[in-house]
Amino acid sequence: MNISHIEHVGIAVTSLEEAIPFYENILGFKCFAIEEVEDQHVKTAFFQVGQTKIELLEATAPESAIAKFIEKNGGRGGIQHIAFAVQDGVQNALDEVQGKGGRVVDAKPRRGAEGLNIAFLHPKTTCGTLVELCEKPQ
Amino acid sequence: MNISHIEHVGIAVTSLEEAIPFYENILGFKCFAIEEVEDQHVKTAFFQVGQTKIELLEATAPESAIAKFIEKNGGRGGIQHIAFAVQDGVQNALDEVQGKGGRVVDAKPRRGAEGLNIAFLHPKTTCGTLVELCEKPQ
Repeated sequence: MNISHIEHVGIAVTSLEEAIPFYENILGFKCFAIEEVEDQHVKTAFFQVGQTKIELLEATAPESAIAKFIEKNGGRGGIQHIAFAVQDGVQNALDEVQGKGGRVVDAKPRRGAEGLNIAFLHPKTTCGTLVELCEKPQ
Repeated sequence: MNISHIEHVGIAVTSLEEAIPFYENILGFKCFAIEEVEDQHVKTAFFQVGQTKIELLEATAPESAIAKFIEKNGGRGGIQHIAFAVQDGVQNALDEVQGKGGRVVDAKPRRGAEGLNIAFLHPKTTCGTLVELCEKPQ
């Protein structure tokens, strides 16, 4: 698989309104976009840090994966996933994972925040970590 | 604060021996160092991904923060911390955090894996996420 860099790190927070000031006022980053991804039931805020984005995620509904993550984490936020930028297509990457005996959550890429093609690998394959593969649509 | 990039992402695993093959054989990274940090009771494995390293962490003793993270996480691994590379000294960064009313775990930098000067911020200040600041010694 041809991965160039970490596209983003997804961090669950209980409230964007409370979290953004830490990233802006203390760490010195600038929030450049706030976006709601309705089918994921999340509101996201993005910061660029070198090659990689920080994606803060706030749940907008109890069935959101972010709400479940925070509940399991004792009501606190934390780092929920890591997303790698693939160079030769998310579908090819998914086929490669499965060809090597790995399991995937998404057998086909779907549309994520910022219009990226994204897919998640299964935590059984990744030793517990939620791993996303993503690419800008061609 | 002057942060240039994400220096590394720290991922807790139950076994380096089980996890390294996922990062090498499926994601295509190359493990370039394995190091034991005795005072942290961890064994680490490093992979370079663009500007950022992936640091896998396996506990070597029950009192390790990694052992506690995995226990709280239902016996599974996951992303434990994110480390930002500061440009003007870790001590200056810690002073700035505290001057802005933030809390820190380490009031002074200490020596971490790869010989970096490191310090952790308090999760109360970071909305739950374990945040490390680090810099190569001058």
